[in-house]
Amino acid sequence: MHNPDITSEIPQAGTPAPGPVPPDLSADLPTGLPSPLSTDVSAGEVLAPYLHARAADFLRGLRLHTESGADTKGAAEAARILRAAARRISGTLHTFRPLLDAAWADPLRTELAWLSGTLALEHACTSRLVRLMDALSRLSSGTGPVPAARGAQGAGLTVGAARAGALLDRQLTLARTRAHSAALQALGSSRFHAVADAVALLASEVPLGPAGSARAVDTLDAPAQDVEHRLLDAVAALPLTRAAHPYNAEALALATGEAQDTPWHHTRRLLRLHRYAAEVLHGAAAADPVLYEAARALDRHRDAAEAAAAAATAARTPRIAPATAYALGVLHADQRHDVEAARFAFQRAWSQATAAVP
Amino acid sequence: MHNPDITSEIPQAGTPAPGPVPPDLSADLPTGLPSPLSTDVSAGEVLAPYLHARAADFLRGLRLHTESGADTKGAAEAARILRAAARRISGTLHTFRPLLDAAWADPLRTELAWLSGTLALEHACTSRLVRLMDALSRLSSGTGPVPAARGAQGAGLTVGAARAGALLDRQLTLARTRAHSAALQALGSSRFHAVADAVALLASEVPLGPAGSARAVDTLDAPAQDVEHRLLDAVAALPLTRAAHPYNAEALALATGEAQDTPWHHTRRLLRLHRYAAEVLHGAAAADPVLYEAARALDRHRDAAEAAAAAATAARTPRIAPATAYALGVLHADQRHDVEAARFAFQRAWSQATAAVP
Repeated sequence: MHNPDITSEIPQAGTPAPGPVPPDLSADLPTGLPSPLSTDVSAGEVLAPYLHARAADFLRGLRLHTESGADTKGAAEAARILRAAARRISGTLHTFRPLLDAAWADPLRTELAWLSGTLALEHACTSRLVRLMDALSRLSSGTGPVPAARGAQGAGLTVGAARAGALLDRQLTLARTRAHSAALQALGSSRFHAVADAVALLASEVPLGPAGSARAVDTLDAPAQDVEHRLLDAVAALPLTRAAHPYNAEALALATGEAQDTPWHHTRRLLRLHRYAAEVLHGAAAADPVLYEAARALDRHRDAAEAAAAAATAARTPRIAPATAYALGVLHADQRHDVEAARFAFQRAWSQATAAVP
Repeated sequence: MHNPDITSEIPQAGTPAPGPVPPDLSADLPTGLPSPLSTDVSAGEVLAPYLHARAADFLRGLRLHTESGADTKGAAEAARILRAAARRISGTLHTFRPLLDAAWADPLRTELAWLSGTLALEHACTSRLVRLMDALSRLSSGTGPVPAARGAQGAGLTVGAARAGALLDRQLTLARTRAHSAALQALGSSRFHAVADAVALLASEVPLGPAGSARAVDTLDAPAQDVEHRLLDAVAALPLTRAAHPYNAEALALATGEAQDTPWHHTRRLLRLHRYAAEVLHGAAAADPVLYEAARALDRHRDAAEAAAAAATAARTPRIAPATAYALGVLHADQRHDVEAARFAFQRAWSQATAAVP
């Protein structure tokens, strides 16, 4: 149930890739700007500045982590920076692997995935708890002005919601504490120091493969297009027609919930890879806001699905009161409802994104 | 919780009112046809044929009831015909009261409301049980093709859903049996025989007031417009902007659920009165299909709200297992989700209906 790949990500203002002149190598999805690849730039000259900048982000996050000490806000920000940089480096190593020294890139990618997964868990527990508490409070307090008009069902739910909240708080706080310890342990481990050393090296030098010195216009486009095609295939396999019809109640088919979510999670990861590849080629400033909306919808999809699963898990706690179980059932369905809403939002953003392509 | 005013109604092909020639007295909402009120027709000459025809429907339903005996399907059809006729007569007596002999119309209206309410309860219990069982089966079985992929949450829900289904079946079947006895008792009572006698009289003679002999064009329009204005006011008070935004999760504010539903139920009753008044003026054949869609959405709203309340009531049964309570919580939220979907559907139909007016 715990997906290590959990982050509510904020796009970083990255360093724009160098070189001013088109030809336009942009793929079928919009990027907002023409490709900045000039004909006299090598693949390595595009990849290296991007990876240098992300490695510098990583080292900045590490420094912030060391300085933050007992400052939890600073520590959370440090972890966020480390995760975002690790994901971007690892995504770039993955997408542009043909241009890199694979013997160097592959193990580093594995280690970065381990690191960002480990760091993501604590954040995921925190945001899941916040999401579930917000939902419980919305469900049980309502927005109406007349408390006297509240029916018996509302009163019953309020009692159950308080208990369900306490139970979820206990379970997710415990999970968060464990994730926090695991993250601290990871950041102090020799395994992490090896990753940090490799990233420090990356801040000044990118080990390229033989194709890295070829012209960027000839070599960078194919790997990026490959990711894009995988993304388009993944989206084509989604039930978007159904998702476009509001209140289709599909995500509420709870028994198949986890299975039906899988292709959406898969699409989320591919869209992220695609966005990072676009950052490499066009710079983060050129990021398409509609694709960002689509990515946010898939993040929301994942968060809601995970929160629903957490409510279901809590409901299997032995010896809970029926009122608690009832509130957890309401919460579970509410979060699955939000899964459906996220699919609707993704479908909207996606159809906007693809409609914008001439 | 039991709203006696519960029917999933099918529009009856009524007798069109006589007289072919306009002037157009149609109100702000579309009717699909110009008003058939000719200038040389009295109000009574429009009201009487409509009431005669509905009284004939009523007597036909009564005959079918007498003949059906142990045939439950025939008995249900008889009850449906009786309800539909009683609602239309009582609605007409209400709307066009200024043209009728009020001393006769008012008590008959009360008695018809008692009758249709009593007859509606059994039907409501049946359709509520069907709705909840359908929802439980959708929620717990899912539509996915791979049973092996079902997660633990699905398995847990399946057990709870079976128990919740058994509990709801027990409770709603008991309620239906009681409603059935009450309906049989009502149909055998002297109170009912008095109603039947009054309706039999209505099949041939309508007691008009002094205004009943005035010209239809001068007198029928004002009462119908009055109903329409009350309807427009009621719709204006609904949070339609919010309802137009899918997945607003408003209906899931469970603690205020009953209070927030009230204006929608009020609108449902006024829309019904408006549709019956349009039948009187323009004939049932001229009924606007979009307004019928809007009415169906409000019926669905009421049905889903009542079903959600039934799930909440079942969850308060003492000594139920947590798994049962959990499934009932899921079911409650699912039905409130359908309340929200019905509001969305009403908003769509309504905006279509009002957009169609030139």
